[in-house]
Amino acid sequence: MTRIQPTQLRDASEIAHFDAEADVIVVGLGCAGSSLLIEACDAGADVLLLERASGGGGTSANSGGLIYLGGGTPVQKAAGFEDDPEEMFKFLVAASSPGADEEKIRLFCEDSVEHFHWFEGQGVPFKRSFHPEPSMEAITDDCLVYSGGEDAWPYDRIARPAPRGHKPQVAGKAGPFFMRKLLEAVERRSARFQWDTLVETLVVQSDGRVVGVVARVAGETRCYRARCGVVLAAGGFSLDEAMVQRHVPQLALCSNKNATEGDDGRGIRMGQGAGGDVVRMDQGEVALPGTIPHRLSRGIYVNARGQRFINEDTYYGHVGIEALFVQEGRVHLLLDEATFERGLVRMEPAFVGETVEEVEREAGFPAGALQATVEFYNRDAGHGEDSQFHKRAECVVPLVTPPFALIDCTPESFIYACMTLGGLRTGVNGEVLTPDGTEIPGLYAVGRTAALFCGRGYAGSGISLADGTYFGRRAGRALAGMRS
Amino acid sequence: MTRIQPTQLRDASEIAHFDAEADVIVVGLGCAGSSLLIEACDAGADVLLLERASGGGGTSANSGGLIYLGGGTPVQKAAGFEDDPEEMFKFLVAASSPGADEEKIRLFCEDSVEHFHWFEGQGVPFKRSFHPEPSMEAITDDCLVYSGGEDAWPYDRIARPAPRGHKPQVAGKAGPFFMRKLLEAVERRSARFQWDTLVETLVVQSDGRVVGVVARVAGETRCYRARCGVVLAAGGFSLDEAMVQRHVPQLALCSNKNATEGDDGRGIRMGQGAGGDVVRMDQGEVALPGTIPHRLSRGIYVNARGQRFINEDTYYGHVGIEALFVQEGRVHLLLDEATFERGLVRMEPAFVGETVEEVEREAGFPAGALQATVEFYNRDAGHGEDSQFHKRAECVVPLVTPPFALIDCTPESFIYACMTLGGLRTGVNGEVLTPDGTEIPGLYAVGRTAALFCGRGYAGSGISLADGTYFGRRAGRALAGMRS
Repeated sequence: MTRIQPTQLRDASEIAHFDAEADVIVVGLGCAGSSLLIEACDAGADVLLLERASGGGGTSANSGGLIYLGGGTPVQKAAGFEDDPEEMFKFLVAASSPGADEEKIRLFCEDSVEHFHWFEGQGVPFKRSFHPEPSMEAITDDCLVYSGGEDAWPYDRIARPAPRGHKPQVAGKAGPFFMRKLLEAVERRSARFQWDTLVETLVVQSDGRVVGVVARVAGETRCYRARCGVVLAAGGFSLDEAMVQRHVPQLALCSNKNATEGDDGRGIRMGQGAGGDVVRMDQGEVALPGTIPHRLSRGIYVNARGQRFINEDTYYGHVGIEALFVQEGRVHLLLDEATFERGLVRMEPAFVGETVEEVEREAGFPAGALQATVEFYNRDAGHGEDSQFHKRAECVVPLVTPPFALIDCTPESFIYACMTLGGLRTGVNGEVLTPDGTEIPGLYAVGRTAALFCGRGYAGSGISLADGTYFGRRAGRALAGMRS
Repeated sequence: MTRIQPTQLRDASEIAHFDAEADVIVVGLGCAGSSLLIEACDAGADVLLLERASGGGGTSANSGGLIYLGGGTPVQKAAGFEDDPEEMFKFLVAASSPGADEEKIRLFCEDSVEHFHWFEGQGVPFKRSFHPEPSMEAITDDCLVYSGGEDAWPYDRIARPAPRGHKPQVAGKAGPFFMRKLLEAVERRSARFQWDTLVETLVVQSDGRVVGVVARVAGETRCYRARCGVVLAAGGFSLDEAMVQRHVPQLALCSNKNATEGDDGRGIRMGQGAGGDVVRMDQGEVALPGTIPHRLSRGIYVNARGQRFINEDTYYGHVGIEALFVQEGRVHLLLDEATFERGLVRMEPAFVGETVEEVEREAGFPAGALQATVEFYNRDAGHGEDSQFHKRAECVVPLVTPPFALIDCTPESFIYACMTLGGLRTGVNGEVLTPDGTEIPGLYAVGRTAALFCGRGYAGSGISLADGTYFGRRAGRALAGMRS
């Protein structure tokens, strides 16, 4: 059987028989598809869910489970943090520029508290607690973390810092628990679910309206008709090597892909086949956990020339993007005896020496370059400041205690966990847009099949689950509202 | 009259009458359309040229006129430079990575000498001479220049350096002369030319084949049929503000756009409407002429932290891309009395001081940061070397003679000349490809309507005219070969 390519659209007039019909067809049951399905069903729509795997979850179920929420959530209030939609907006715009999508960010921030309550209403619990270790979720069942460098330079000067990473209440990795709860909420709806169903392409009328999909089920071709619309909630393209090479080749170097089999770009390509524009295909999330635990931020990252390039105390996702895309992965972390931590996996030093000069020479830096960097940094640190990168005072200590160690943070040696962020261009309700900005009737995209809603870079951990769920819900309501 | 959007395709079955018909319809008469037309006509094809302006030339006629050619051209040989396709290939791959298109680069390099002779055959003359001032074309009628930093680090370690920027033989700016010669060659062909004709969208059959175009001529809608194919040679998207904001927002900061009215992205959007993929939409050419004349490379560029970030002696296009995309335009050039040049337009210092410390303070750098950079640089320079960025020895002199001057090279104050480089994804003969990699029958794209052939960044001045003409010719031959 010849595989149908995602862009080989099927003409509706050629399809004599549809195997099933629904108001809304959802392709993929990760966090975006789930949220959409819940809202569409609650608004009275008849939903048919098609999922290539044998059950729901997708890449969301494999995530850390942080959700980016703010504006004054009950958890923020209980933990004593002041936040409001305006400060959240200012942070997200700054962290997503240039090219931030202010319209979507505005909606997202204004509705964030309501979105928090919606999660709790679906059975996703959040402990009213703060976890002081930033960047990633707690291993305990504690909730709130700084997950985007909100309290680090330059964002601490742009918006009042508040932690916004919300971890559902469970010890350990929260993604599986979060998706289990969300899928339990999904199961309480009366949608129809069809597993092991690979959607191959879209069915389009002569006027361009998307009216259904063609899928493969147990080796057979099936056609499904959608009265209101088809939603592509089928993941990103992290696992399609050709697309990665074409659009964001740097990710090919990364050791870990935050992806499951759905992330093969088929959803994006189907949307393109129907005329959808793609944006920010060059962008990726890249987590470089070199400063986990956060005490390691007292070290300094240096590039191939021995120069610092970032405040080490910021979100490890900002570090990862800078390290991979700008410094081409040629990055080391310098620690001294006082800041080094023994027994951490993957933190074995590549070079150790009694002096900075010794590790500089061993690692092959230009003679004197690393020494000059450390000398300048230590002089600053003597005054408790970091005049170049404005690292917070508690992370600024002179690196003076031998031996000195260089951790090799190149992609060949260290963890780089990545995910694609580019995808279909969409309106505020998930409507797929053409390059001219017009809507493609009947076609929607949410989650990583759409481009990250806020803009360039990756504002903070939890932003992708928040994107999928919030804009998934919006699309669900919009679609349900289109029933005649 | 309502404007038709480029992605609003017309169905061939709805068109009762075509106003004209040809083997090949070419949309746009810049260097790519001209080269294509010449080759298609010479191979016997009947060509209809549609141009929105009142004559040919496009952005090519507004360019400096450099053409990137090598592999051992007669000019290279006469000037005493050894070159071959393999060294040219190594350079272009390195300068276009990650994600370099090795297949297209290989063809381009192997055919480059032949392409040079073809230009001369069309009446474009090249003086057998070398101009020692690199980066941009001579103001004399001299020909050959280093136009991509081939003799600068790191490329000088990767491939044997050879100058490959070829300027047609005319004093001053060569773009107008070059296009005049090419258009004279075009006029010697028997193609039909229709000016003031804005192609609005493509005509597509139900099987997806592109069979014509819809155009607006003097307020009227006209339809033209193509028997073999339609070629989009309609420029890039530098002048479409929405597309620039969406795909490469950094270019919005640039003072100068290398663009004419055709560069509104309509060609790209038409191709997308027909199912074409787009690649490298985030890429731009950015020329930052802060080291023109090249003696100014003895100064040092510093970023907002007072750090150097590039070897100042390299191609000013590499500097511009690094300055704009990586350093966010926060760039100054530091010179001392011995390296400063008086009387240059736009080179008025923003800050002058008797010591580095003084200009550092005035310009608001972190205290000591610029001094540390200069101290390290001067120590190296004392030994005639640049251990961090490997600037060539003749450009490395200690900056020690007061007064010191900082030139403000931010986009707000300095020349940044830019152009978009992303566009439709094409095969080696200009075939527009879908996201699945399949060809769209009857649709071709060349010049800046297609993505720059070689990969990321901008390898060197002259690469865009070379791209348009070489791949234009390939498409012309391929299309002519399809006549039944």
